[in-house]
Amino acid sequence: MRVAFLGLGIMGSRMAANLRDAGHELVVWNRTRSRADAFGGAVAATPAEAAAGAEVVVTMVVDGPQVESVLLGDGGAAHGAAEGTLVVDMSTIGPTAARAIGAALGERGLRFVDAPVTGSSPKAEAGTLTIMAGGAAEDVDRARPLFEAMGETIVHAGELGHGQMVKLLNNAVAVANAIALGQALLAGRATGVDLDALVAVMGAGSAGSAMLDLKAGPMRSHDYATLFKTEHMLKDVRLCLEETQAAGVPFPAAADAREILSAAVGRGHGADDFAAVIEVLEGLAGARL
Amino acid sequence: MRVAFLGLGIMGSRMAANLRDAGHELVVWNRTRSRADAFGGAVAATPAEAAAGAEVVVTMVVDGPQVESVLLGDGGAAHGAAEGTLVVDMSTIGPTAARAIGAALGERGLRFVDAPVTGSSPKAEAGTLTIMAGGAAEDVDRARPLFEAMGETIVHAGELGHGQMVKLLNNAVAVANAIALGQALLAGRATGVDLDALVAVMGAGSAGSAMLDLKAGPMRSHDYATLFKTEHMLKDVRLCLEETQAAGVPFPAAADAREILSAAVGRGHGADDFAAVIEVLEGLAGARL
Repeated sequence: MRVAFLGLGIMGSRMAANLRDAGHELVVWNRTRSRADAFGGAVAATPAEAAAGAEVVVTMVVDGPQVESVLLGDGGAAHGAAEGTLVVDMSTIGPTAARAIGAALGERGLRFVDAPVTGSSPKAEAGTLTIMAGGAAEDVDRARPLFEAMGETIVHAGELGHGQMVKLLNNAVAVANAIALGQALLAGRATGVDLDALVAVMGAGSAGSAMLDLKAGPMRSHDYATLFKTEHMLKDVRLCLEETQAAGVPFPAAADAREILSAAVGRGHGADDFAAVIEVLEGLAGARL
Repeated sequence: MRVAFLGLGIMGSRMAANLRDAGHELVVWNRTRSRADAFGGAVAATPAEAAAGAEVVVTMVVDGPQVESVLLGDGGAAHGAAEGTLVVDMSTIGPTAARAIGAALGERGLRFVDAPVTGSSPKAEAGTLTIMAGGAAEDVDRARPLFEAMGETIVHAGELGHGQMVKLLNNAVAVANAIALGQALLAGRATGVDLDALVAVMGAGSAGSAMLDLKAGPMRSHDYATLFKTEHMLKDVRLCLEETQAAGVPFPAAADAREILSAAVGRGHGADDFAAVIEVLEGLAGARL
């Protein structure tokens, strides 16, 4: 397919490379032009230029305002795309922003799918991301060959915005599990048990989790080398709670997580990995791991 | 080794069979004699008789009072065991009971290790239990050949009672993860996302957990066929909180879990699997999955 790929950051450059390797015809654009030149192939001067002649426009940028700017701003893709072009945003922007952008694109005769991803840069490089798509079934089906070149687990989460919502729920559960883990490690330390034994037992059984595998070590060594920033996790959990509150459903584990994440950001850990929630839990416990 | 095995319930009978298959010389006792006769081999009339001549006495019964009765009551193993005999309790009784029983056995010249297990009857049958032992290193080492016939992951968790403590911490984290999962499923339902997609995404990434694998299905279908009773989980979480409070460390996720479990038991789900926490969460959400 002819694809305009907008945003060649750490994730986007790897995802675009997998599309190219799968035989798709790419025109790329990036805010910092040098990254696009380094990527090679056809480079457009503006998103509008990239979108001219494309069947699908893919965006992979930082947040909702950037997606809006790249699609709807001056020189935005909407100004170059032919009627009926499918726009697929793979950034994490929240359901409300996704619905608003979808409505604006719809007024211009363009189709829109929100398709955020989970998985870090190694999975982006390997083409094994998890991709959760929201939008009309026929639009998601059109994008599927592209998703299959970039991802391993690909799901249709529901209507427009629901890809975003699934991602927010996923992240809220992840951080809730991380917080329970951190509290248990501190409880283990305080009661005197061997923490290696505790971690081994949890990993072998009912307390096992991705967070145990990924965060128990960093929490114990206070190593917050960033995989996922605390401030980004806080943003996601806040967006999640806005949606659940609007839906009238309580989500106490996420609300607790928001408070802990917020305290971690307030103590200067915003740019650290969210394993830094252990700093707040240690403060509460009055002890260090 | 010559082993007295006391308690041939669902777990104990399978664990004892693995000891016998590994070549250990067993004398068994069970409160209901017919189960011991069905197990076969040497059957003792009392725990004291079973313990006479044994190098190691293993108990696998229901709770602390039963362990105390079987070891220290009339006809208890302590009355038949030679000085220096090692007693290994593999029941879940809590750290306080383990320490008290250890002290009473110590006064009679007997050694004691607490070694509760995690894993259900299939793992007991396969000899792949997780075994967490508390006690003196030399005592744990003496028991290790027996543990290796019954378990796969075997850890020395620390001093006497710490095997129990690790099990309680493990269970508290498990139920905390289950509660966050249940809340997320309800939030997903309320916001309209496809729950199959949500479960698939969580399982592929950072929200993955043993509880997701084991409880998402039962929660969604309201199927509480018992793997682990809600009232037993409540007991474990309460014991966990008693210990953490005594150690002066807060464990909010466990305290929240205690409230939810307690409400579930109060609504008649004590004998149901603890997936029944979803009933309480549904009440809070004012909606069903």
